[in-house]
Amino acid sequence: MKIAQVAPLIESVPPRLYGGTERIVSYLTEELIRQGHEVSLFASGDSRTSARLIATVPKALRLDPNVRDYLPYTVLQLEQLRQYAHTFDIIHFHGDYVHLPVARSLGMKGIVTTMHGRLDLPDYQTLFAEFDDAPLVSISDHQRLPLPSACWVGTVYHGLPAEVCAFTEQPRGDYVAFLGRISPEKRPDRAIEIARQAGMRIKIAAKVDDADRAYFHERIEPLLSQPHVEFIGEIGEHQKSEFLGNAAALLFPIDWPEPFGLVMIEAMSCGTPCIAWRAGSVPEIIEEGVTGYIVDSIDAAAERLRHVGMLKRSTVREKFEQRFSAARMAADYVQIYRRLLASQPNRIAA
Amino acid sequence: MKIAQVAPLIESVPPRLYGGTERIVSYLTEELIRQGHEVSLFASGDSRTSARLIATVPKALRLDPNVRDYLPYTVLQLEQLRQYAHTFDIIHFHGDYVHLPVARSLGMKGIVTTMHGRLDLPDYQTLFAEFDDAPLVSISDHQRLPLPSACWVGTVYHGLPAEVCAFTEQPRGDYVAFLGRISPEKRPDRAIEIARQAGMRIKIAAKVDDADRAYFHERIEPLLSQPHVEFIGEIGEHQKSEFLGNAAALLFPIDWPEPFGLVMIEAMSCGTPCIAWRAGSVPEIIEEGVTGYIVDSIDAAAERLRHVGMLKRSTVREKFEQRFSAARMAADYVQIYRRLLASQPNRIAA
Repeated sequence: MKIAQVAPLIESVPPRLYGGTERIVSYLTEELIRQGHEVSLFASGDSRTSARLIATVPKALRLDPNVRDYLPYTVLQLEQLRQYAHTFDIIHFHGDYVHLPVARSLGMKGIVTTMHGRLDLPDYQTLFAEFDDAPLVSISDHQRLPLPSACWVGTVYHGLPAEVCAFTEQPRGDYVAFLGRISPEKRPDRAIEIARQAGMRIKIAAKVDDADRAYFHERIEPLLSQPHVEFIGEIGEHQKSEFLGNAAALLFPIDWPEPFGLVMIEAMSCGTPCIAWRAGSVPEIIEEGVTGYIVDSIDAAAERLRHVGMLKRSTVREKFEQRFSAARMAADYVQIYRRLLASQPNRIAA
Repeated sequence: MKIAQVAPLIESVPPRLYGGTERIVSYLTEELIRQGHEVSLFASGDSRTSARLIATVPKALRLDPNVRDYLPYTVLQLEQLRQYAHTFDIIHFHGDYVHLPVARSLGMKGIVTTMHGRLDLPDYQTLFAEFDDAPLVSISDHQRLPLPSACWVGTVYHGLPAEVCAFTEQPRGDYVAFLGRISPEKRPDRAIEIARQAGMRIKIAAKVDDADRAYFHERIEPLLSQPHVEFIGEIGEHQKSEFLGNAAALLFPIDWPEPFGLVMIEAMSCGTPCIAWRAGSVPEIIEEGVTGYIVDSIDAAAERLRHVGMLKRSTVREKFEQRFSAARMAADYVQIYRRLLASQPNRIAA
């Protein structure tokens, strides 16, 4: 198939820094090419890809000091896509919604949008009441719930190439890991308390965004002086395998409707189980007692953590390979593409 | 002609509060109808209009506490417009640029966009390099300068109905007026100093936006205790005639590239001359020695202010009626509409 992947321009594909959407677009693009498809990637010019790159801007918007407003570039990318549109069988958008009027005007069967963010904003209700025929893909079933009447054609869980986070059979295992942003949604405070109750060390690899700096100083920094806590700041992609692979478990005590949660499958790829709060996508990603535990309280989490060594790391990795590989993700998308082109998009309930 | 006016949804048309664009769309719409055209107005549902109202949302977004993000509604309005598009001869956009790909896809001659804001953001350069065939109208010649290669088809100065700001032949004239936002761009500090040097009282009718609160407290509040200064806060539309009409002059000592500056023609409508800084649209609006004075320094402004009584108020009002009436504005737009439909848009240089 001739496929266009339309990525955000904020980060390059893959991103140089943080950027979950751009990473997934990269993995999907490379895997589709490996499977023999002809892929064009609409993305920033500093992207690295085997696809034909159609660059709207020379570099990722977030890294360009001259850029003040992202929206003009999104509009420009949309126009470039519109001009090429009829040379593709499939156009796969990874932006949220600005493209919908143009997409509808194209009158093509093979257009689909993956929603990468949370959908519980009231402003989306009105928009998708109109665009109730625009095929959408969710990244977890839970993500779909706020928009039941949208045209959902499937959930496709994110996937990673097998080698991104290497399997660690024999971890040092003398700590638990917290990886992500320091934010009230991610609840690093819960993670610190869980580790304390379980008598474990915790290593926190996390960036602090400007928006969360007050939260960090007021709520988290005072907790970091405890002897069981080690705060190591932001880490790069290449350090993740070592960081996650050597942990006894990943703690994911979130307090928001997480649409997916990439870090859970990164840990699974390393063979590291995850102890996660029952929220958002978590019950879809974690298999209770196999790849981790799903909990509702700090006490329960600490209790599970004390016995997490009973979970077999090789099984965790197997489950990753079965359910969360990039190859599986690409195959799922190809199946959706084929259904769209056959005009059988198989609309599903939210 | 069958004309669609596409207004922003942030305020109603006309706006209940501040909103220059929505006021102009309202004046233009009513005047086009008065001149016999069939007008549809795409705007928020709480707009008051003689046109057919096509409402995307029940009320102005800025007044709706459930609204967090304006962009989904802009996209939705664009889709509504797209569906009706071919029932119109003319589609006149007053939003900035999000509509451009859809507008181009319609393949219609009669589409035009009035740019209401400043255009010197670098992000616009890239966008309008692509959309160099989208007919644009500027609200002053100066506004066009940052985008010389865009498809400018005319400058149409804003206009007001004659009765909005009534002519005051015999003003009290014992003060000068400052009307606008308290912001570094509007330079109320300069206005206060000009009045002091000229030995005049100044009345400041101005709102303080949250974004400018620090500036107000640090830079302006300390100046308000001077005996010649009276700060009266924000005033409504119905108070403007009295406030501007009784002033000896309006002070407009701006420090930014003002695209138009409605308050100058509001003052002119009252017969009140304006002393304004040489910036942005000012030299196009003010006729030196006739409707006001254009200055470059506080000393010069104070000197002019001492002699501003020499300008004839009836002449100021005459100039307003000739150059800045709603009827003239509508006639200018109709001329542009006709040229577009005749495919002779008469592209002009920036």
